[in-house]
Amino acid sequence: MYSQSIQKLIKIFTKFPTIGPRIASRFVFYLLKLSKEEIDELINSISTLKEKVKLCSFCFKSFEGEGELCEICQNPQRDKTLLCIIEKETDLIPIEKTQKYQGRYFILGGNIGKLKQEDIEKLRIKELKERVKDVKEVIIATNATTEGEATALYLERILKPLNIKITRLGRGLPVGGELEYADEETLGSAFEGRK
Amino acid sequence: MYSQSIQKLIKIFTKFPTIGPRIASRFVFYLLKLSKEEIDELINSISTLKEKVKLCSFCFKSFEGEGELCEICQNPQRDKTLLCIIEKETDLIPIEKTQKYQGRYFILGGNIGKLKQEDIEKLRIKELKERVKDVKEVIIATNATTEGEATALYLERILKPLNIKITRLGRGLPVGGELEYADEETLGSAFEGRK
Amino acid sequence: MYSQSIQKLIKIFTKFPTIGPRIASRFVFYLLKLSKEEIDELINSISTLKEKVKLCSFCFKSFEGEGELCEICQNPQRDKTLLCIIEKETDLIPIEKTQKYQGRYFILGGNIGKLKQEDIEKLRIKELKERVKDVKEVIIATNATTEGEATALYLERILKPLNIKITRLGRGLPVGGELEYADEETLGSAFEGRK
Amino acid sequence: MYSQSIQKLIKIFTKFPTIGPRIASRFVFYLLKLSKEEIDELINSISTLKEKVKLCSFCFKSFEGEGELCEICQNPQRDKTLLCIIEKETDLIPIEKTQKYQGRYFILGGNIGKLKQEDIEKLRIKELKERVKDVKEVIIATNATTEGEATALYLERILKPLNIKITRLGRGLPVGGELEYADEETLGSAFEGRK
Repeated sequence: MYSQSIQKLIKIFTKFPTIGPRIASRFVFYLLKLSKEEIDELINSISTLKEKVKLCSFCFKSFEGEGELCEICQNPQRDKTLLCIIEKETDLIPIEKTQKYQGRYFILGGNIGKLKQEDIEKLRIKELKERVKDVKEVIIATNATTEGEATALYLERILKPLNIKITRLGRGLPVGGELEYADEETLGSAFEGRK
Repeated sequence: MYSQSIQKLIKIFTKFPTIGPRIASRFVFYLLKLSKEEIDELINSISTLKEKVKLCSFCFKSFEGEGELCEICQNPQRDKTLLCIIEKETDLIPIEKTQKYQGRYFILGGNIGKLKQEDIEKLRIKELKERVKDVKEVIIATNATTEGEATALYLERILKPLNIKITRLGRGLPVGGELEYADEETLGSAFEGRK
Repeated sequence: MYSQSIQKLIKIFTKFPTIGPRIASRFVFYLLKLSKEEIDELINSISTLKEKVKLCSFCFKSFEGEGELCEICQNPQRDKTLLCIIEKETDLIPIEKTQKYQGRYFILGGNIGKLKQEDIEKLRIKELKERVKDVKEVIIATNATTEGEATALYLERILKPLNIKITRLGRGLPVGGELEYADEETLGSAFEGRK
Repeated sequence: MYSQSIQKLIKIFTKFPTIGPRIASRFVFYLLKLSKEEIDELINSISTLKEKVKLCSFCFKSFEGEGELCEICQNPQRDKTLLCIIEKETDLIPIEKTQKYQGRYFILGGNIGKLKQEDIEKLRIKELKERVKDVKEVIIATNATTEGEATALYLERILKPLNIKITRLGRGLPVGGELEYADEETLGSAFEGRK
């Protein structure tokens, strides 16, 4: 129904995370209404993104500016003996917001749902082994999902021979949680982790 | 937290329809993972969109190709004595899919929630008055929302003096609808429109 | 975990429409907190329900009071030449609220999802055939669901030989409905039923 | 619209937890369809409920049978030096299911949203003070909601002078929880409670 250029762009937007064909077509009609200046601004922002944004050579977080290290890894006040392993960059923001963690991060680059060799190879395991050399505590902060749990178990197996303290995030009732609706595992962890 | 270029692109994506900051940031990290070729394809598709896509000089539907008219308005088999007024282009697809309508369309360009002068001025009222000259029936196919209803009433007032047959879409129970959960107005329309 | 009497009552409440075990157990603890007077009121209301409530001998609606007919069938102002067939008694209230219908009702007693003989036998088909004798128009007001549609088709087949005008509720966009989200059948009906 | 007896029973059912008028009316029509035997079974179960079910003289849990104590408080294998305070009886089942707790319970009888004197008076505070006399650890297992938190703080203030160890359930990510969607407080607790 839609013309060729519109269909092509709908197809591209449909690959964006969470976007289906209906929203993708609304994106295209939104773009058709934008001014020349707004289109140029969008195109410019997309095309310079990869030029300007670098990945930190220590933690693999994105950053801009001079040097090899991101603003967290450069910060002399962050505790270099602590390393928090997270699955992906968007997990870093909520941790920073808690203001309970003053160490550095390591972005693993994914998780391993089913211990498939090809999934494991996508993770930055080799780099992780190098980063933990002078570290006293590694905090495995993967999600509490099945995939995150499998990844955490895999990391524990890899890091155990290196004789570093390995911890994992506490499990329990989240804020607003009710006992009546809690699953057994969460509630069991809440009992074990009482204090 | 995110670097400047990332923040700027998040801000731009947040203006896209239905997109909030969380999904916007996922878009940016998705783009960071794309290859140079994929980024170029996206940029190219966006930048040529407005060059290639024209608006039909009769109905204002988007189209590509030769001439001034879209493929529907050009089609000699479409009944030129019927005109269906819709709020926006995305409303055209579901009507075409019904295969119950063989006339032409007119895309009004919006709706008027509160009869504000500035909202009315955004609609293509002047063009509509010209388009209905040789038309026998105008079907007002605005949404059944408050805004769509207000727009329909406004159009009826404008078109009535021109002595054309004016119809509106039938109201009633939608497919899957249950009487127990139907509102009074819908069910009342369903009774009046029984056949 | 719960004691025997509690478990038994939970089991009974779980058979109530829409009630699962969690809500059923909340019902029991709610009852345990009620006063003797409140429990007696509940028990009294349940036990006299079937004694006091009769089914109308014409339409099968529940009613209390003298005579064989409910307050609608007794009402001399209701048009006896119109008969509206509904699946169940709770469908009657929303129709009455529209104030668009002044005839009488007939409660069919269910619907037939798959034309099974045992489902058909539960419906009041024999009674329906008697009720339509002096009627000019029968309005089949089954739900717009698959089951309601199948029931309507079955009723049409049964009533057609009797030479009565048979109508069905109009289909179309419900109040608040948007074209973009309407299914093809609903929108097709809305086009056919335009006026 | 509905007759008097039906309306009265709808009104009574509307007071049941989570039940609105629509479901309440479905309950009544469900009851109208039940057999005499089923109605009698329901009435019998309700009327004997309060006779048969007793509240444990120690923990206030409901139970049936001989004696003053429920099956948990009677059980010699439960650790009498541990006491878990819960808001209401339905919170006990999920804790038992975890099989991580071998002590006894105390059902507080509610929570205090706003420290109102009348709310506090409904709680079994006096009884609680008596129950903790020979206890070594009191586990406050109120919900992680605002009301549960307020109640926990109130209990801590009351129990502190008695020189008993007071603990609370661990907070953190629940099973299935993702960092990206966790609130700051939950994630902060997860970091503090890492192990």
